Amino acid sequence: MMTLRECIADAEKNKVAIGHFNISNTEGLWGVFRAAKNLNVPVIIGVSEGERDFLGIRQSVALVRSLREQFKYPIFINADHTYSYDRVKEAIDAGFDAVIFDGAKLSLEENILTARKCVEYARSINSEIIVEGEIGYIGTSSKILDAIPEGVGIIGSGSLTKPEDAKNFVLETGVDLLAPSVGTFHGVLRTGVKPALDIERVGLVRKAAGVPLVLHGGSGNSKEDFTHAIEAGVSIVHINTEIRIAYRKGLELGLQQNPDEVAPYKFLKGSVASIEKVVDEKLKIFNRL
Amino acid sequence: MMTLRECIADAEKNKVAIGHFNISNTEGLWGVFRAAKNLNVPVIIGVSEGERDFLGIRQSVALVRSLREQFKYPIFINADHTYSYDRVKEAIDAGFDAVIFDGAKLSLEENILTARKCVEYARSINSEIIVEGEIGYIGTSSKILDAIPEGVGIIGSGSLTKPEDAKNFVLETGVDLLAPSVGTFHGVLRTGVKPALDIERVGLVRKAAGVPLVLHGGSGNSKEDFTHAIEAGVSIVHINTEIRIAYRKGLELGLQQNPDEVAPYKFLKGSVASIEKVVDEKLKIFNRL
Repeated sequence: MMTLRECIADAEKNKVAIGHFNISNTEGLWGVFRAAKNLNVPVIIGVSEGERDFLGIRQSVALVRSLREQFKYPIFINADHTYSYDRVKEAIDAGFDAVIFDGAKLSLEENILTARKCVEYARSINSEIIVEGEIGYIGTSSKILDAIPEGVGIIGSGSLTKPEDAKNFVLETGVDLLAPSVGTFHGVLRTGVKPALDIERVGLVRKAAGVPLVLHGGSGNSKEDFTHAIEAGVSIVHINTEIRIAYRKGLELGLQQNPDEVAPYKFLKGSVASIEKVVDEKLKIFNRL
Repeated sequence: MMTLRECIADAEKNKVAIGHFNISNTEGLWGVFRAAKNLNVPVIIGVSEGERDFLGIRQSVALVRSLREQFKYPIFINADHTYSYDRVKEAIDAGFDAVIFDGAKLSLEENILTARKCVEYARSINSEIIVEGEIGYIGTSSKILDAIPEGVGIIGSGSLTKPEDAKNFVLETGVDLLAPSVGTFHGVLRTGVKPALDIERVGLVRKAAGVPLVLHGGSGNSKEDFTHAIEAGVSIVHINTEIRIAYRKGLELGLQQNPDEVAPYKFLKGSVASIEKVVDEKLKIFNRL
């Protein structure tokens, strides 16, 4: 079976992207896994600090590993947005396949220092562990927003990631993947429409960085933006808010349609199905299916 | 760390019972585990055929094992009410610590034949796997009932388990545990009150069977009935319906109190807490705390 590193190399070669989807429980896991398996594409399960504390750090790993082993399937677990070296170390020690050190809110120097420390620790444990760094602030909350969060760069704002910063960051830290600020951000706008991505910058940053790029905050971006960003150098796309909304809607509908049902596995089926539907749609775009 | 077999022997010696609680997802798992860990008592997680199909058969095992290993804690996973040899075998192959072959609706002869086959298979894999058999019909659905299900024995009905049948069943099958019909049944009555258990019969069946007894359908039984039944020979008590009701209520409340929240781990916290509360109350009774 392919490793995550091999799956990323493969995605890059084939000009597709691996979908990364966040979960908080087993309904989320099954919704994502079923959609991926049905399309036969690799997939990454993401858990933020809050999500992994809720689901269980070691339990997140145990679940994803059990699916990988049972189905001989390329499903991986990533410690999404981790804000300290200690929590990166904790995730590596628990057996995560990939970690993201998010130092985008720190000064570039501090960000580089800690990201390098994370890379060194990962390499000392297992060379297969993927470490991602972030430069350029893209917000923090996967929720419904009334406005673009303060400090987030969009086209023309002047605060998008500069190719030379990307190059320097990767050289100094040794990260395997880079999440730049190219016009997207976490969450979705209440209006439903997200500003366009800076596709030209994606290409320039990818070239300067020398490593594949990761697009965070993909909820709400257009199909065209995804396709062009993947073409230009994005090899992983993160979706969270849209799954969260689908999950909540599916859950509420399940309760409503089964007013007297107390068996959870009966009234929770709809929430799994609604996650599966969103993931299926995104994976088709990311994998050009 | 103690094995399940040792925990059962210990419970019997100390005249307490191990709590067995059913789950459908990770919220259920954490609710049960937190309550048990807080009281420092062993606990069994149960998954019926429907529950384990929803949660994932191998994933149920992976989750419970990861908690057992991480916390060095006596938490075990049981394949609750399994109606065929094939599904018992499937659970054993997936790594369950315990299985229940439920042939209570079959003729006693057919029940014995299949239960014996289950025991033989379990022994061929690992002598630590606990196999439970059932005689005497106690219903099948953990839900809110308008009346006692047809065919279920209650005091004076003449259809409760006879000590000689229990003795014969255990001798013929070699099961480690026996679930008899002693006046209880799955589910709770809408009135909230369950008929009293036949405590004298519990003692006679235990003596004749020669193995510890398991009380199913514990939701709705009185504290006194539990205490006396445990005293008389019950070493494991199953609770499902009361957890299911608590989970649904906690879930609905969490959604209601967080109308705009889309992060599942935020609005699901209440459902974990409401399961924990029920489990805590039951474990205190079963363990005389």
